[in-house]
Amino acid sequence: MGKGLLNPVAAELFMKLEILRILGNRESLNLIELASELGLQDWEVLEFVNELRKYFMIDYVKGKLTWFSGDNPAKIKPWGWHYVYKVAVGSTMIAARRAPPWSILLAEWQYKSYGRHGKAWISNLGGVWVTLKLEISPRAAQVLPMVIPLAICRYLEERLDIKAKIKWPNDVVVKGKKLAGFLIEAEVLLDKILAYVGIGINVNNEPPVETAISIREVLGKLVPRNNITAYIVGVLGRAEKWSEEAGRVQVQYLEYLETLGTRVKLITRNGTYVGVVKGITESGDIVVETEAGSLKFSSGEVMELRHLD
Amino acid sequence: MGKGLLNPVAAELFMKLEILRILGNRESLNLIELASELGLQDWEVLEFVNELRKYFMIDYVKGKLTWFSGDNPAKIKPWGWHYVYKVAVGSTMIAARRAPPWSILLAEWQYKSYGRHGKAWISNLGGVWVTLKLEISPRAAQVLPMVIPLAICRYLEERLDIKAKIKWPNDVVVKGKKLAGFLIEAEVLLDKILAYVGIGINVNNEPPVETAISIREVLGKLVPRNNITAYIVGVLGRAEKWSEEAGRVQVQYLEYLETLGTRVKLITRNGTYVGVVKGITESGDIVVETEAGSLKFSSGEVMELRHLD
Repeated sequence: MGKGLLNPVAAELFMKLEILRILGNRESLNLIELASELGLQDWEVLEFVNELRKYFMIDYVKGKLTWFSGDNPAKIKPWGWHYVYKVAVGSTMIAARRAPPWSILLAEWQYKSYGRHGKAWISNLGGVWVTLKLEISPRAAQVLPMVIPLAICRYLEERLDIKAKIKWPNDVVVKGKKLAGFLIEAEVLLDKILAYVGIGINVNNEPPVETAISIREVLGKLVPRNNITAYIVGVLGRAEKWSEEAGRVQVQYLEYLETLGTRVKLITRNGTYVGVVKGITESGDIVVETEAGSLKFSSGEVMELRHLD
Repeated sequence: MGKGLLNPVAAELFMKLEILRILGNRESLNLIELASELGLQDWEVLEFVNELRKYFMIDYVKGKLTWFSGDNPAKIKPWGWHYVYKVAVGSTMIAARRAPPWSILLAEWQYKSYGRHGKAWISNLGGVWVTLKLEISPRAAQVLPMVIPLAICRYLEERLDIKAKIKWPNDVVVKGKKLAGFLIEAEVLLDKILAYVGIGINVNNEPPVETAISIREVLGKLVPRNNITAYIVGVLGRAEKWSEEAGRVQVQYLEYLETLGTRVKLITRNGTYVGVVKGITESGDIVVETEAGSLKFSSGEVMELRHLD
């Protein structure tokens, strides 16, 4: 009845997500059964599966498909958390709004994810795209912007032997390219803060832009994702504890801070500043020595930070 | 992290199908709950819902969404049939292959649907896209190509007061435009035929091409789809009965045959023929009076039939 109203990329993404949806809930599944369930030819499904195997640890042996449980988020049951895993979601940040405190929202694909200042964030297949909803003290909330990138850097270094740096305020970079980013939104209650921590990590996905990099690219192989998620969840679950050790957190944070001692250009809502980064305050503001003297900027003020060296 | 790798049409289709998936399984649902489940802003969901309401009978009253059960295929339970409804599927024809005989496969959207001679068939949202798998006698199989378009024409005339015509071999046309089409594939068993009857009806969907038309366009309003499906299922369930009345079926078929008495051009695998349509044999072949005399063509031979008058 005519040809291609629909972009083939759309249709293919859809079928791939259907495969993840079906496969995620089984121990293993014959390719033939999967094809039948999808209403596709065996060879068509095999093409999709082979594409998916670039980004997901899916075994295909003797006609049987198995998604390695360490990489399949449907197989996590984090104790003490309300865990919601969806193959596709609008945005995990928005999905978290009506979830109870201490929720984890994790998705394989986001229709409309966003980063700082509402910038678009592309959630390619194979990454970790997660929002944690925490109910914490204001003090703990203040230390989060340091704890999160620190946790990511330490995981990369200790578990995967990858040297990573923090690019203030919200990025983790490897070889100068963005490997992870985070975003904190908060609702202030009477004596508590409801913090929405959105974290995106390029694990096995195709990096969406030239200035990004994924763990798969660094190591040349796929890495099971659930361990990274569990590590970060564990760290953020102890947010109150870190707030009691804010000084020590800050010292460690500075060790990873790529920006320290370098000349930067800060584009803020109120103008552009150039200077040398001298440090980070306990509340996470950046201290920059400019011609006009020493100035402090919060991450909320800064739209963009560019290295000049 | 950069912008739009994914075509927005893709993402939007995906979210619309998610909405149908969620809504189809509930009695009714608050827009706010739906937004929360999808991880979208309320206004974003409302935009999608308003788009869907062009093609589906979804009520939105006082913040509550209800998909009218007469239009929601998730609400059908056809007695005596194995019924499989999927929001999205590769092709209902292929999904039917491993289903038991007397199965119905119905989908809102098909990734890779096809028509006669493998031509692409676009399954826009709001149509009836269904495959029936029948186990019937060879005699009953022979009468199917007449019974199917006849059933569609009678439904349109008797229930919706729409004058429709059969365009041999596989189309139903209204005002010269295609409103429905069908496709029969078969596996021959020892004494039985496994027939796969694929039927596509432009009910409330946007017609995919200029030469197509939908019931919604003809009547200027949405029509609940389940009744049409039930009618056709009922007719095809009595395939053996029709084979006993093949003569009467043929007479009625000819009454609806637009092609009768007109000059046509037939493009076949073996060449092109021009002549006047004289009738249809009991086995559904077309009889054409050509310069070379009276010739018979099966629907399998004919790639295309064009009217010359």
